[in-house]
This record gives sequence, C-alpha cells and structure tokens, in this order.
Amino acid sequence: MKFVIDMMGGDNGSKVTIEAVLEFAKQHLEDTFYCVGNIDELSSLNGINNIILVPSKTVLKMDVDPMVAIHDKESSMNIAVDTYLNEKCDGFISAGSTGAVLTLATLKLKRLPGITRPGLITPFPTYKKNKRFVAIDLGANTLNTKEELHQFAKMGSIYYQIVYSYDHPKVGLLNIGSEEEKGNDLRKETYQLLNEDKSLYFIGNIEGNEPLYGNVDVLVTDGFSGNIFLKTMEGSCKVMSLLIKDAFKKNILTKIGYLFSKKGFDELKERMDYKNVGGAMLMGINGVCIKAHGNSDFKSFTSALNMCYSLAKKDIVSQIKESL
Amino acid sequence: MKFVIDMMGGDNGSKVTIEAVLEFAKQHLEDTFYCVGNIDELSSLNGINNIILVPSKTVLKMDVDPMVAIHDKESSMNIAVDTYLNEKCDGFISAGSTGAVLTLATLKLKRLPGITRPGLITPFPTYKKNKRFVAIDLGANTLNTKEELHQFAKMGSIYYQIVYSYDHPKVGLLNIGSEEEKGNDLRKETYQLLNEDKSLYFIGNIEGNEPLYGNVDVLVTDGFSGNIFLKTMEGSCKVMSLLIKDAFKKNILTKIGYLFSKKGFDELKERMDYKNVGGAMLMGINGVCIKAHGNSDFKSFTSALNMCYSLAKKDIVSQIKESL
Repeated sequence: MKFVIDMMGGDNGSKVTIEAVLEFAKQHLEDTFYCVGNIDELSSLNGINNIILVPSKTVLKMDVDPMVAIHDKESSMNIAVDTYLNEKCDGFISAGSTGAVLTLATLKLKRLPGITRPGLITPFPTYKKNKRFVAIDLGANTLNTKEELHQFAKMGSIYYQIVYSYDHPKVGLLNIGSEEEKGNDLRKETYQLLNEDKSLYFIGNIEGNEPLYGNVDVLVTDGFSGNIFLKTMEGSCKVMSLLIKDAFKKNILTKIGYLFSKKGFDELKERMDYKNVGGAMLMGINGVCIKAHGNSDFKSFTSALNMCYSLAKKDIVSQIKESL
Repeated sequence: MKFVIDMMGGDNGSKVTIEAVLEFAKQHLEDTFYCVGNIDELSSLNGINNIILVPSKTVLKMDVDPMVAIHDKESSMNIAVDTYLNEKCDGFISAGSTGAVLTLATLKLKRLPGITRPGLITPFPTYKKNKRFVAIDLGANTLNTKEELHQFAKMGSIYYQIVYSYDHPKVGLLNIGSEEEKGNDLRKETYQLLNEDKSLYFIGNIEGNEPLYGNVDVLVTDGFSGNIFLKTMEGSCKVMSLLIKDAFKKNILTKIGYLFSKKGFDELKERMDYKNVGGAMLMGINGVCIKAHGNSDFKSFTSALNMCYSLAKKDIVSQIKESL
C-alpha cells in the first residue's frame, strides 16, 4: 500500500511526524510512504528504502482561510493531496487545519455519490472495557440538514461494522432528552428519518452523559454539537486527570498511596488517553483521509498512522460505496 | 422571607423533599415554607411552626406536555406557582419537569421586561480551587436567536456579579473554535453583538474543553448546545469517578493505596460533586425560580434550597431588572 503524509501541518511541525513515520515505515517495509514537506527539515528520512520525499515550500496555518488553502498550491497539504491522487495512494494524513483538510479533500478527492457533506468520525473509549463508540460529525460542518445527519448515520454504521466487525451497531441521535419529541425541529425530523430507515438499528435519542457508558455504538450529530460534545468530554477527562494527580500529591500519605495504587491508575490513564486514537477520519470522501490532532505528539501521530493503515487495509471506502 | 416548594415533582418524590425541607426550615426559623403536595404524604410536616402545608391532587410527569402542565390545575407544581403569586413569596423550587417549570413560570410569573426567552443558569466548579463559572442557557430553549444569546450574556454577567461579588466577569461564547469567524452564522452574529456591548467584558469564543480550567466566568450558549455541554461534562466526570473507584479496587495493593490517599480523593469528590449545586435558576422570569435536579437526593435538594435562599436574599430579580 502507499500512504502520503503531510509532514508539516501540526502544531509541533516535522519534529513529531519524522520520528513517528520513521518508526512506522520500519514496521511496514512492504508499504511506501510519501513524505511531503521542507526537504531540508526532512533530511533524516533520506535514503530509507520505503520512504519517498516530496518537496513543498509553504505550510498552511491552523486558522487558514479555505480560499487561501486552495490557492497556496506550494503548501505541504496541497501537494500531499495531489500526491495522493497522482500516485494512487491508499491513505492520506495531515495534522494541519481541519478546515483546510476538509476543503482540499472535498475539492480534489471528491465526495462519494449520495453524500452532500463529509463528516469527521472517531472512536471513543467507554466505561465498558474494550468497548468503543464512534461519533460523527465532530466538526467538519457548522450546520447540517436532516438528510446530512441521515448520511452520517449510514456512514457511521458502516464504519462501525467494518472496523469492529460488529453486525448491527446501535445508532443514537445526540439530543437534549430521550423522548421522541425532544429537541428542535432538526432533531425531530432527523429522528423520523432514522427511525424509518430499516437498514439502521436506531435506538433513539441519546443525551450527552450517556455515550461514555457504552450504551450506543454510533452517535449521530451535527458538526457544531458534535464538536461541543468532543471538546467538553476531552476537557472534562483532562481536568479530572489533573485533579487525580493533585489528589495524590496532597501530602506524604497520599504520595505513598500513589505508589500502592499506581498500577490501577496507569490502566485508567491508558484507557482514557485520547492519544491512543490520534485522529479522525473524514468520511464521505473518495479516499482514506485522516485528520490527526493538531497538537499531535509521537504517540498520537503514530496512532493516526495506525488508524489510516487499518482503514486502508480494510478498504473502507469501497465498502462504503457499495453499502450506500 | 417566604418560600414555596413543589414537594412532589422529583424522581424520588416527597421522601427526599420532606427530609430536606424539615432540616432547612429548622435552620431558618424566621422564614416561612409553603409545602405543596399530597397532604397525607406530607403529614410529618404537620405542626411545625414555619411550615404551611398546601394541598394538591396530582403530580406532573417528567415528560409532561406543556399544554397538560397548564391545564392540570390541581398539580403540585401549578398550585406551587399560584401560591408563589398569592402569598407574594420570595422563592420557588421544583424538581419536576423542566419544560413544565419553564411553561408555568413564564405564563404566571411573566418574563422580565426586555427578555424574550428565559434561560437556565447554574454554577460549575473548575480546576481552580474556589473558582466557579456559570453557563446560560442549559436547556430551557431548543433554539435561540442572537438577541436571546445577548440577553443571556447580560443576565449571566449580572448573576455572576451579584452571586460572587465580582465586578467584571469575563463573558465567553461557546463555539467550535476560538477565532472570531468560527462557527455558524448565529455564532458569528452573536460574537459581533457581544463585542459591541461595552457593558460586557467579552473575551471571545470559548471551546468546550476550556471552561473547566476556570478561564471564563460566564459561558453564553443556546439551550441546545448548553444542554449537550452540561450533560457531557456531568457524564464524563461521573465515568471518570467510576474509573477511579475501579482503579482503587483493582487488587489488594491498590486497596491499601486507597487508604493512604483517601483524604486527597475525598477532597476531589467533594469539589466535583454536582450535588453541591443542586439546581439551576430560571433567569429572565419575574421571580426566583429554581429547577432542582430531577433525581435530587437529600444533599442536592438541600443545595437547591440554599441556592434559592441566597438568590432571594440578594434580591437578584430586582437587581437584574435595574441592570437591564
């Protein structure tokens, strides 16, 4: 398989991506990795058999305007998307601006037939060990129609089936109450659409406190609410982690307590660490397109590479096309 | 002062409210408490000097239709609101249906001049010790205009000033990015309105992961996103608490660890316990109207009573009227 990586896009630049790609390429000698970026910065990747350097001149800013993203044809992201097409790659990764990834991928890779807006999807850990749920859209859109929410439900359901080999994933609609008539018109109308689609296992409305318990497999939401959901969950878990640290640091006794209970808390940390996921797939695009965390470090960029690799290997895009 | 309590509304019925009101009335002998509900159930409140029983026949269901709430004139909530008006009370509390509280309070107590939609406001703990932020609206509305978000900003700012004696609370707009042009049209237009209002200390857009760190005082949001924010935060903190418990229960060593570190974790638990808040004020209504948690227990209903008491004592409604 062939992968193309925008090496420059994240907050931490090529330092993080070089390390991660070096390691990943070593473990996947049969695959080829196109690394797009400033050639001088990427010199340590020179001479590695399965790595091909592709030069670029500029780097898109995190808050880049979509029009600038399109017109700056020398940017690492733009050239990476071109490389994806020219070299018929199997996967694309960037830790750069979400808006730019969305714009360039939609423009150049095109949408899948029947999809009006792509959506960002990613898995989350739950209170149930080894149980994940996915949520779509997490912020590719700021406003969606009921038809788009229906498309998200279908794509999310297929994603879950393919990635977790699970036949009838439970689909829920993020809403502010569980009863059918809750929420605004968009939610009430989407509820009806999802309920009528017999290809979905729709379990109704889901409130923000429920998904982490693991009672839903595919959480469907517009990009605005989905992003609020994502960020609020990340922030809450992060602050709780800081408070756990502080609790152990309180005095000499609690510090001793930490030594005893370390094993339990290492497990908790590992389980809830969002770096184990690393990114989100832009679904609805004719290609495997992964948006890695803007502030990716080695661990999370490696997870994004793993995500891209496994989705490409499962040929998720063909499977989605078929199912739609 | 005089308070009226819907004794029947919550998931746990009068069992919880009786205990809490008994204790609270004992500590506030100079105040009068009108307790509305099934007289037989409330018999243990008989003969207490500062408690007056008010009989009601029915109880509104949690998912009651607003029209039913209006027409069921014998319900504890309906009679409680009437009592508030007839006895010129200073505060009203119900753990019943949010929609019914909103409907009956708006209909009978009326909105404040200049307010088109009331909003639910409540304080949240943050990572900074003793630092709170408030968020409005948390779910009284399912859709809001920019003018309503502006009203929430003004009311939230006044609430913060009065409750925390803090002169220039930082107002932020819940959004999916920090830059001015982020989000959908509603957010962009609201951003301009808040930015132009020189009576507010507007600090811009706030993402869902930020408020818990304590960098904003008043978080402004429409009721739909606000409710997603509230529930997601509650759920995440709750699941993290369960995971902490599990981590300590992992094996004999971690159990010993718990004994050593208990003090630190008791503090964490107390700090993040939403039962310490107990409810939300319905702001924009001509009265102090507190919606207690539907699943209130003794601790959280007592907190709701405390909230109601302190807001009434500060004469928050007159102060809001003046400031608007």
